[in-house]
Amino acid sequence: MEKPTLPKGTRDFGPAVMAKRQFIFDTIRKVFQKYGFQPLETPSMENLSTLTGKYGEEGDQLLFKILNSGDYLKDADQQKLETRNSKQLTSQISEKGLRYDLTVPFARYVVMNRNEVSFPFKRYQIQPVWRADRPQKGRYREFYQCDADVVGTNSLICEAEILLMIKEVFRGLGIEDYTIKINHRGILSGIAETIGATDKQTALFVAIDKLDKIGEDKVKEELIPKGFSEASLTTLFEILNTTGSTQDKIAFLNTRFAASEAGKKGLHDLREVLSLLSAYQATDEHVEFDIALARGLSYYTGCIFEVKINNVSIGSVSGGGRYDNLTASFGDKENLSGVGFSFGVDRIYDAMEELNLFPKGTQVSSKVLICHFDEESFRYGLGVLAKLRANGIASEIYPDQSKLKKQLDFANKKMIPFTIVIGSEEMKSGLLGFKDMDRGQQENISIEQIINSKFQIPG
Amino acid sequence: MEKPTLPKGTRDFGPAVMAKRQFIFDTIRKVFQKYGFQPLETPSMENLSTLTGKYGEEGDQLLFKILNSGDYLKDADQQKLETRNSKQLTSQISEKGLRYDLTVPFARYVVMNRNEVSFPFKRYQIQPVWRADRPQKGRYREFYQCDADVVGTNSLICEAEILLMIKEVFRGLGIEDYTIKINHRGILSGIAETIGATDKQTALFVAIDKLDKIGEDKVKEELIPKGFSEASLTTLFEILNTTGSTQDKIAFLNTRFAASEAGKKGLHDLREVLSLLSAYQATDEHVEFDIALARGLSYYTGCIFEVKINNVSIGSVSGGGRYDNLTASFGDKENLSGVGFSFGVDRIYDAMEELNLFPKGTQVSSKVLICHFDEESFRYGLGVLAKLRANGIASEIYPDQSKLKKQLDFANKKMIPFTIVIGSEEMKSGLLGFKDMDRGQQENISIEQIINSKFQIPG
Repeated sequence: MEKPTLPKGTRDFGPAVMAKRQFIFDTIRKVFQKYGFQPLETPSMENLSTLTGKYGEEGDQLLFKILNSGDYLKDADQQKLETRNSKQLTSQISEKGLRYDLTVPFARYVVMNRNEVSFPFKRYQIQPVWRADRPQKGRYREFYQCDADVVGTNSLICEAEILLMIKEVFRGLGIEDYTIKINHRGILSGIAETIGATDKQTALFVAIDKLDKIGEDKVKEELIPKGFSEASLTTLFEILNTTGSTQDKIAFLNTRFAASEAGKKGLHDLREVLSLLSAYQATDEHVEFDIALARGLSYYTGCIFEVKINNVSIGSVSGGGRYDNLTASFGDKENLSGVGFSFGVDRIYDAMEELNLFPKGTQVSSKVLICHFDEESFRYGLGVLAKLRANGIASEIYPDQSKLKKQLDFANKKMIPFTIVIGSEEMKSGLLGFKDMDRGQQENISIEQIINSKFQIPG
Repeated sequence: MEKPTLPKGTRDFGPAVMAKRQFIFDTIRKVFQKYGFQPLETPSMENLSTLTGKYGEEGDQLLFKILNSGDYLKDADQQKLETRNSKQLTSQISEKGLRYDLTVPFARYVVMNRNEVSFPFKRYQIQPVWRADRPQKGRYREFYQCDADVVGTNSLICEAEILLMIKEVFRGLGIEDYTIKINHRGILSGIAETIGATDKQTALFVAIDKLDKIGEDKVKEELIPKGFSEASLTTLFEILNTTGSTQDKIAFLNTRFAASEAGKKGLHDLREVLSLLSAYQATDEHVEFDIALARGLSYYTGCIFEVKINNVSIGSVSGGGRYDNLTASFGDKENLSGVGFSFGVDRIYDAMEELNLFPKGTQVSSKVLICHFDEESFRYGLGVLAKLRANGIASEIYPDQSKLKKQLDFANKKMIPFTIVIGSEEMKSGLLGFKDMDRGQQENISIEQIINSKFQIPG
């Protein structure tokens, strides 16, 4: 029989990795809750009618689709079968898919629960998503997203609080060198209008989005066949290449956007977000106005964000923005304005490993292992174990009759910091052999002393 | 456009439900960790070669299968397509499935990581599983399992600790009226041997398993066509209908199992587990020796457990047992003995709702909402908000300019217990309107007083 394997692009998380991941999740969850966000979970499977058409054609292809149960071919179209038309057969043999992100399920939830939800609704959601992407470093087929969104308000404090939350999460994780890029769809529209490409916005944004990956020349190569004139491209890069502080860039764009309402709105919003930051007594440290930031997803309509950890070879670890008509895609007439962002935990994990940022002692393990020499000391040990646990101290007993060395080795391997050794002497005196495995020190003290003086008793 | 819906048998968990579920998960996780179990997570998708054949034929049919990406029909067998042979086509167009339980992925993990794992290995795993079952009350197509298993030891303290953990979890949840049924596969084999049905064990166990659902007569009806004699069935029910205390039952079976080694081993193990319980200074309260308990899955070889909450119309909420050859199904020669159990969180949730057992105040929400009258007090409020959060107090500000009543209504709906109202008077004096929403009391005090006297500051 062949050794079992994992599906491509998926991973197991053993105890050591889990503890570190838990540290990231807990840090993020704590910040979300501190900012008033409430938890939501949606099913892993959604109807394909909910998912398709929301992520562009490429996204649709990356959806994992679930084969209908039972005799799924029964009503399949004969011609589609015979011509092996995979694409067209799919809708006949599959009606569910795995969640591709957390935003569309959230929008679906809001539409379905419109009457029970009180707006503005701040929800966070920490769940895995699946994409049939080609696996590569930092890109997996199953990975967690941690999203926080607010719907039902246009207030720009939501944008300001996203910046504050990103900063607070990174502070909690010990990540110091990172950049939050910020831009506004209105500014991108302003650029399109300014260079006379109002009717070619999508092509323009798609190309700009790749600028930092493919460079100025390739972006031009891509745009010229789409009808962009040399002159418009010269103006484009004159704008995109503006340098200086955020205030400098805003001032410069202001001179260019005289004729663009969208552009002016974008500049106003950016200015307001920065002004709100100072009302929170916070600075714009780490925040960088990046005129070329476009973000792929077309549903953004206001501010957009993207976060990169510097000096690691990993893409963006967080991103988001304002969308003004998300529920519209579900036929919702009353467009709810929303703004949200997402942390990519798997990438943050990889970056923290690369930068060696995980604190020591994240391991989830017992605090004490009880070791014994024979059946009698083993049974005595069970009573000791019960007392430790009754006092909230995570602990275990070595379950088999084995040499002491083997038992102590086990404690070391499992990173259990303390052992209690029980033999006939210890049972007689009630003074147990309590050992600090790190320092190698051993002392003989009673279980009551161990409980009262060696451990901080929770709650 | 049609209103979006959820796939059959799946559910959204909004904030109020999430908080209650989190209470159950936290209680279980805390107990697992206290007993020395370490976290593991495996991918939602497994190769079908890992999953199929592990859950019986019925189980295989309940697997959710994932359609291969891309042009999945390209290499499909023409004949299978033309004859619409769904069953046979499946393996050609799908190679992955969703996790059906947490035990098989755990066994797969152990086989793949044999050299890194230190045995005995105690792992817990809290993740959703998927089954294409017909949805009904208490049965969902996506539901969480919380498993704890130990592999690499035959020690019966593992079984004893499972009983202790179940009791501790239920104590933590406030569930008082429940029964832990315990039996042993050896005892079932002993019965089979005693009634002369050694070669028909599977049929016997399958029928016995349904006894409490279909009753004695139907079990007989099922067994007679399978070659069980009237005499053997009379003996069978004489044994199954034995009443009395656990000790009484053990004594009675002892007289019947003289010729059955398996039966004697089963009785010995049960006696030892109960004896170990007393070494922990624990009682066998809630524990009931149920000779008819068989549990469906055929991989159990030792003690088996099942937990029912009494007086609710919900099936078993926890179950497990010892298996002595789980990794063998992956071609592992060195059979690892293991024992484990699983909590069904969704059923526990339903039972706790039915019994009204959730403690008040599980809601995850801000502690404070800041209310304001105009742009100036709004901006002033942002500074107050920053101070609250800097002191670890979950809080938020009403993001829009709205009437005070609307803001206070929002606090009530979101169950935010305190509000701070800021107007021009408050800004002048620095004494803010701090209101306890439950009691309706309001006092004017400084933000420092609020932070220092109204909240327990964590850490």
